[in-house]
Amino acid sequence: MTTKSIKRFNITKVSGGAVTDTSDALAIEEPLEIRLEYGVADNRVVKNVSVTMRTPGNDGELAAGFLFTEGIISSGEAVFDIEHSFISCAENKENVVVVKLKDGIIPNLNNAERNFYTSSSCGVCGKGSINAIRTVSSFANKKEISHSIDAEVLYRLPDVLRYYQDAFASTGGIHASGLFNLAGELLLLREDVGRHNALDKLIGAAINQNLLPLDNHILLLSGRASFELVQKAVMAGITVIAAVGAPSSLAVELAGEFNITLAGFLRNQRFNIYTGGHRISLPDYELK
Amino acid sequence: MTTKSIKRFNITKVSGGAVTDTSDALAIEEPLEIRLEYGVADNRVVKNVSVTMRTPGNDGELAAGFLFTEGIISSGEAVFDIEHSFISCAENKENVVVVKLKDGIIPNLNNAERNFYTSSSCGVCGKGSINAIRTVSSFANKKEISHSIDAEVLYRLPDVLRYYQDAFASTGGIHASGLFNLAGELLLLREDVGRHNALDKLIGAAINQNLLPLDNHILLLSGRASFELVQKAVMAGITVIAAVGAPSSLAVELAGEFNITLAGFLRNQRFNIYTGGHRISLPDYELK
Repeated sequence: MTTKSIKRFNITKVSGGAVTDTSDALAIEEPLEIRLEYGVADNRVVKNVSVTMRTPGNDGELAAGFLFTEGIISSGEAVFDIEHSFISCAENKENVVVVKLKDGIIPNLNNAERNFYTSSSCGVCGKGSINAIRTVSSFANKKEISHSIDAEVLYRLPDVLRYYQDAFASTGGIHASGLFNLAGELLLLREDVGRHNALDKLIGAAINQNLLPLDNHILLLSGRASFELVQKAVMAGITVIAAVGAPSSLAVELAGEFNITLAGFLRNQRFNIYTGGHRISLPDYELK
Repeated sequence: MTTKSIKRFNITKVSGGAVTDTSDALAIEEPLEIRLEYGVADNRVVKNVSVTMRTPGNDGELAAGFLFTEGIISSGEAVFDIEHSFISCAENKENVVVVKLKDGIIPNLNNAERNFYTSSSCGVCGKGSINAIRTVSSFANKKEISHSIDAEVLYRLPDVLRYYQDAFASTGGIHASGLFNLAGELLLLREDVGRHNALDKLIGAAINQNLLPLDNHILLLSGRASFELVQKAVMAGITVIAAVGAPSSLAVELAGEFNITLAGFLRNQRFNIYTGGHRISLPDYELK
């Protein structure tokens, strides 16, 4: 997290009987437009794909992660350059990013339709949304790599995330996604005002580092686990998700369909296992 | 919140040294497609306007609130009926809602474009997003009604919200929006897995009860205050917003532009005033 992710505001702090004029650091929220440039040689077009409200920083990773998790590009190999464009912003802010695909690579813009996963198939049913992901994900049907994660490793993750999450400490208003190895060591951490953006940035960074599929890792979410977050995890081949907050019903159903281990309410040496408990070892515990 | 908002799952609870097989109630997340029917007499069309992941319940309010806060309809008077459609869902779920406009009422579907507020004007700058709202909101330029809210009233709001928020108690994974009068009495409470949906449901309910503009009220948000939530508040003429969590930078800037009182981190007898402090009375306090 860089200083451009935070902005200070003059505030009045009211606490019990005391009133203080002071300043407060808040997470910056600004629009980011993601554009895609593709085609062949002199015959290239530029299309606006999405606008998202995000915290500035790691915009290239956000764009790459978004295009990949939405199924618009099928690998990081499709991209040859990502850069900011300043043409359409009078304020000269870094609010437009252009992703340039290699010559001849055709993006799957059918998947860029609004709410692709939630509106395709079966009218709009949760089951239809789950099936739509199956058709798009590269890693959905891969063979399972067996591994086992100690409960003690899971217990430690939120503290590690919080320790490294510097922006959270100063603003209290930002989501984080962390990627850990199976020993509980932090490999990647990304933050954003939008939880989906934090995960897209993380997956974009993993794509840049050639880490996909992320089937030998643990994804930690600083808040709740929604359908959308589990969907993005499926796309990246993630097999273990731990969330500090609660999962939604459809997040659990999606995780179950794709054989993902989903733990929720991970805090204070506790967690709930919703799906895929076979990957978590509880050797010293007594099953009541 | 009704029982159809919650679903029970079998889980394994791991706590310190104990492992228990039990069940857990989770907030239901399902897609809702909002359709709009409009035209004259026999010449009426139906358009899909949006798909959102929401918690079932109060779908009609959600649809009305969404259409209004997005500037697609300009008042509740435009609507003559709202009902579920089961035509396109094999599972027979209530995941499609059709909003029928009165004969001759034309919706402003320009505003239904993806991310209207964040992509119109000035390329994509926060300032451009703020200006776009000014052109659409009915209540943005109205004369201020002067009123004063006791800090002690604000202190009480989160406890009141929590007391009535029955779904939260059982799932821990749901957002709430509460509408209070200036004495701190709860008038309306709506919940959803999506914070924007909880607010759309609340505003939709207020439209049904003919309460707009909500300029003699306090809006309480159970989580953070983002640009999108303040934007929806502006559309409903809300002048006082209190959030249990942090605001984003653009939420504060938007509140400032529209003369909205925005308080954040409202918990444990404390809060920060970001904008519009003139509406909060701090009589017994000593300014340090």
